[in-house]
Amino acid sequence: MPHKLLLLTRENAIYHQLITALALPELEIVDEQPAHVAEADIWLAEPAMAAPLIPVAHSLKWLQSTFAGVDKLMQLKRPLTCQLTNVKGVFGPLMSEYVFGYLLSIYRQQREYAAQQAERRWQEGRYCTLQGKTLLVLGTGSIGSHLAQTAHHFGMSAIGVSRRGRPNAHFDAVYDISQLTKLVCRADVLVNALPHTPQTVHLIDGELLAQLPRHASFFNVGRGSAVKLDELYQLLQQRADLTAVLDVFEQEPLSAEHLIWQQANAIITPHIAAPSFPEQVVQIFAENYQYFCQGQPLVNLVDVNAGY
Amino acid sequence: MPHKLLLLTRENAIYHQLITALALPELEIVDEQPAHVAEADIWLAEPAMAAPLIPVAHSLKWLQSTFAGVDKLMQLKRPLTCQLTNVKGVFGPLMSEYVFGYLLSIYRQQREYAAQQAERRWQEGRYCTLQGKTLLVLGTGSIGSHLAQTAHHFGMSAIGVSRRGRPNAHFDAVYDISQLTKLVCRADVLVNALPHTPQTVHLIDGELLAQLPRHASFFNVGRGSAVKLDELYQLLQQRADLTAVLDVFEQEPLSAEHLIWQQANAIITPHIAAPSFPEQVVQIFAENYQYFCQGQPLVNLVDVNAGY
Repeated sequence: MPHKLLLLTRENAIYHQLITALALPELEIVDEQPAHVAEADIWLAEPAMAAPLIPVAHSLKWLQSTFAGVDKLMQLKRPLTCQLTNVKGVFGPLMSEYVFGYLLSIYRQQREYAAQQAERRWQEGRYCTLQGKTLLVLGTGSIGSHLAQTAHHFGMSAIGVSRRGRPNAHFDAVYDISQLTKLVCRADVLVNALPHTPQTVHLIDGELLAQLPRHASFFNVGRGSAVKLDELYQLLQQRADLTAVLDVFEQEPLSAEHLIWQQANAIITPHIAAPSFPEQVVQIFAENYQYFCQGQPLVNLVDVNAGY
Repeated sequence: MPHKLLLLTRENAIYHQLITALALPELEIVDEQPAHVAEADIWLAEPAMAAPLIPVAHSLKWLQSTFAGVDKLMQLKRPLTCQLTNVKGVFGPLMSEYVFGYLLSIYRQQREYAAQQAERRWQEGRYCTLQGKTLLVLGTGSIGSHLAQTAHHFGMSAIGVSRRGRPNAHFDAVYDISQLTKLVCRADVLVNALPHTPQTVHLIDGELLAQLPRHASFFNVGRGSAVKLDELYQLLQQRADLTAVLDVFEQEPLSAEHLIWQQANAIITPHIAAPSFPEQVVQIFAENYQYFCQGQPLVNLVDVNAGY
């Protein structure tokens, strides 16, 4: 009897085409009719689209998330009993592009030079370099590690913070999360790349961020829930020397009413730092499908208790 | 008898302080009085400030340029007879910051997202990544090599072009300059990092740049004289898909009358991609001073015939 795969993404047509092209053995792609939802033993799904259907997922053995963040599947009434895998390891380079793109734009004063160009004005500004600066990354997984490598490439130091503070070769040092407050005052650049867990909710508040040294930058590319946004907004009003670059928010889309949209030292993007490319997701899915059929351990398995 | 050092820079006070702090043996810093100019056997100088005084440099044995580009000292009536050294090897990281800062800003649509933020609009754009793209660098010295390493870090290929096409471990391939026309059509990103020499003047014209593939970017961080600016301007008008990022110009400052200032797909900066930091220049000077006193070969010696 073939496996039945249910697609629950906003790009089902693309996924259908990519998976069909792979001609995976014994795999039938089914549509969203209630009978099929109940029969499908494998789901390839965006967490927010899968969550409401979990109560009728009577045959589900394995759910492959198309996203890294699976918090929507952690907030169910009854915990998941199927295997849950996500996409990891593919976001590091994209996150480095996002973080270092904006960081270099800030350090190398692209906004100021664009204003001068508009006035046809030739004038050297004050000069900054990333060399010798310190990056502090919350989260030392594949994303944090790639950010650390990029920091080293540009001559920065890279310090990591993780739950347990386990050493990681990509960082100059890794501390456990209890040290966070002491470390922030050393961070020329602070990046949150933590997953959503009960422990990370509102971890980053105004009091913590107020410890940032002058002219520091704060990036949130992890989860919106990690940051107390209103406290961050208040701090940005008080300290024009800081810059915040925010790609994720507790409520997405960010309300058009929120005043942080027009805060001059805030850069707001609509959760685009590291999108999942279907091509990459399908690669991970195909590898896992092989393991699933062979009864072997899946890759990128999520620990449902830890939440990532 | 101590050596006499003449400072000819716009930052003489800083240089004076930095060099004094090093307490280099047998070295006296002299001022710009004509008698002292004639007596000084060592000059630490910006090429454009040194050039007019060369005819009265009766004692000059060694000129340490504070810049990489020494073309102003190559255009003298009588060729230099003293040793000429420049600053090399310190600009790679700064050039990578500049080039990849703007490149990521273009690829990751920072301008479009800034416009959306101004309208408080949450909308994902089309998505580009540097991964899989090809960088073509003209010049495979320390600057070109650092750009190639940065390209590799971001998952790009890196091809180099140099006068002789000698292989270089930092590039996937290096070709000699005669192959340039054939290579340009493969360049998602073309960077000129060549020095000014008679061979590089107007090397990059409209016909060559017209070979660039769709959505390519062209950077000039080498010398302004390498580019036929008016032909580039015409091409940018015809091809909105291209972006040019220009830091150097044949005439600097770029005339306020030039229409390229207001060309939407041109980014103009006032020769700030990789400034010389006095701290770094003084390090090179101090090392060379030691060699000079010992009669050993100087580092970063310029080949006055080749021009770099």
